[in-house]
Amino acid sequence: MRPAHVAGVGVSEFGKFPDVSLPTLVADSVQAAMADADMSNVDAIYLGNVYGSSGIGPRALSSLHAAGVPIVTIEAACASSTLAFIEASWAVSTGRYETVLVVGCEQLSSRFSGGIRPNSADPEGHAGLVLPALYAMAANRYIEYYGLTHEQLAMVSVKNHENGAKNPRAQYRRAVTLDEVMNSPMIADPLTLLQCCPISDGSASAVITARDHPKGILIAGYKLGSGGLWDYASPHVWGYDLVSRVALDVYRDLGITPLEIDLFEVHDAFTIGEIVTTEALGLAEIGCGGMFVESGASGLDGKSPVNPSGGLLSKGHPLGATGLSQVTEVVLQLRDEAGDCQVDGARRGMVETMGGGVSMVDGNACGVIVLENNRAQ
Amino acid sequence: MRPAHVAGVGVSEFGKFPDVSLPTLVADSVQAAMADADMSNVDAIYLGNVYGSSGIGPRALSSLHAAGVPIVTIEAACASSTLAFIEASWAVSTGRYETVLVVGCEQLSSRFSGGIRPNSADPEGHAGLVLPALYAMAANRYIEYYGLTHEQLAMVSVKNHENGAKNPRAQYRRAVTLDEVMNSPMIADPLTLLQCCPISDGSASAVITARDHPKGILIAGYKLGSGGLWDYASPHVWGYDLVSRVALDVYRDLGITPLEIDLFEVHDAFTIGEIVTTEALGLAEIGCGGMFVESGASGLDGKSPVNPSGGLLSKGHPLGATGLSQVTEVVLQLRDEAGDCQVDGARRGMVETMGGGVSMVDGNACGVIVLENNRAQ
Repeated sequence: MRPAHVAGVGVSEFGKFPDVSLPTLVADSVQAAMADADMSNVDAIYLGNVYGSSGIGPRALSSLHAAGVPIVTIEAACASSTLAFIEASWAVSTGRYETVLVVGCEQLSSRFSGGIRPNSADPEGHAGLVLPALYAMAANRYIEYYGLTHEQLAMVSVKNHENGAKNPRAQYRRAVTLDEVMNSPMIADPLTLLQCCPISDGSASAVITARDHPKGILIAGYKLGSGGLWDYASPHVWGYDLVSRVALDVYRDLGITPLEIDLFEVHDAFTIGEIVTTEALGLAEIGCGGMFVESGASGLDGKSPVNPSGGLLSKGHPLGATGLSQVTEVVLQLRDEAGDCQVDGARRGMVETMGGGVSMVDGNACGVIVLENNRAQ
Repeated sequence: MRPAHVAGVGVSEFGKFPDVSLPTLVADSVQAAMADADMSNVDAIYLGNVYGSSGIGPRALSSLHAAGVPIVTIEAACASSTLAFIEASWAVSTGRYETVLVVGCEQLSSRFSGGIRPNSADPEGHAGLVLPALYAMAANRYIEYYGLTHEQLAMVSVKNHENGAKNPRAQYRRAVTLDEVMNSPMIADPLTLLQCCPISDGSASAVITARDHPKGILIAGYKLGSGGLWDYASPHVWGYDLVSRVALDVYRDLGITPLEIDLFEVHDAFTIGEIVTTEALGLAEIGCGGMFVESGASGLDGKSPVNPSGGLLSKGHPLGATGLSQVTEVVLQLRDEAGDCQVDGARRGMVETMGGGVSMVDGNACGVIVLENNRAQ
């Protein structure tokens, strides 16, 4: 096993662009990442995407004339490109390829103008259990168990929009007040509109290489897991068991504690997701995720900054692109290039992504990645 | 790099089962493969599928309570599970996992009752260039170049249906005459109905392990490539360039010639596909694929048996399951368990799968795998 490094990253604009094709979105991030890495060739491509049609990998890349090198397309719902990044990292560090391009992409707005519909072929989808409803159930269960306040829940959105307002790559770059969050339209009680990620189109790319590279950020560790059907019998809210298991594996592998990580980009598709995730990652005690955000500990200047980029809530959530967007944000942090979102002295960062199906009840994926700047300062 | 072996294989019934869910189809092949390998646990699962929805991996496996281990879902059109098998093989031989389950699956009949529709968002799909039309164009170009006769083209179907009639795993188990093939309804001139693979549902699974196993069949080599947009400027018919490049890489890696391979399971979604593929694999000279099948060289008793299982034309083509169905057939041959389809003394076999998009013009994938029985006889 040899070390693998991220040599370059790039993103397209994130937003709603129903008239922009997937290959065009992909070209934007690929060209940016290749330019960032100052490279013109790769040995293979791994691509994460959810809603593309048959043969989407070569098709999404068609405008780049990339045909020839192996292309592997991975689907794991929201964690698609997180898993693509992990599979590509393994391929590079085991000597299969010297340099790999990883691409995540999604064109949602042209397909789902009114939100992502449930799959009526599934019992849960038939019953209307779309993702906002499932997260709302988790939120209500959590509130009942632990006394989380609606204000604490909303504070996740306030914090992430405050960060996103400083991030030129975010889809929504406007800070919002606690009142605005709590009084925005109710989507699935207790989750209001500003506590739900938007529909987004976009792509994000990264170049992974085994070569020494002046910008190289070490891929220090990663794990993936699948998990749980919604486990009605678990003492924990949905998401906790899977994320904590995968994260613990990563901490154990690296021999580090959560306090030795300088920033976290995590899956906050809904505010309750970040609350549960901060606990699953070991940043807060179980039941204390609300107090954690309220205390400012996860703010840009806190002891454990969470989603300094603005997270999915503000930065947007083009499903297949999300994981690599998170990787991009962490890499820029570790290169001290995160501008107004910069976490001072960041040397090690974590990406965490959950990927549930349209109906989460049927199972889901989680990928966790740790990146390090181990160059001399 | 340590050797990886196929320890067990299994398939569901192949056919049109619009009322049977994907998890049910998957359970059939997984249980068969795990029983064949005499195993009850695996360390990870790679799954190939094309038309499942978001999060299809964990969802397709939901009835097996497999959640927990890493699940990676790969989409590469018809080559989806061929690529899943290749990625899983790499993971096992590099020590990432000890034992991996690979699953391919597809439920087409409930989605495409009248055939797979073109994607109207693509220029080619909008113009009606569905796969039968694209293969027909390739066939006409080939006929024009090389003087292939319509009878030779039809002989591929006669041969494969003759083989399929002996295969209990085939969707269509009836031999057909040359007249029947040539007089079946025209789908896309010159391809008649019996020269086109059917719509199929099904799943196929294999267990790959690094352990010594009494049934172990060595995964001797593999390659994948992506290729070509339809290259109008190529002197070759569509498919030739990509398949020959990937196959040559495999032969070179293994230091063998095509004559040292005892049987071939190749992508004959349409008869012209097998003609071109036999040339690309080096079994016949360019332009001689028609004479090759006419000579009987690719028959069950020929020097290079091609599709002794009946191929996609007879065995069926549940897209995501096809690659692992081909792997299953080769493994059974190498274990001398192929019954009436058995190729005498088979010790080494090849799988070749092409994966084009709905519109092939945008690029496609090819995976080639060589399996060997290297146990003492």
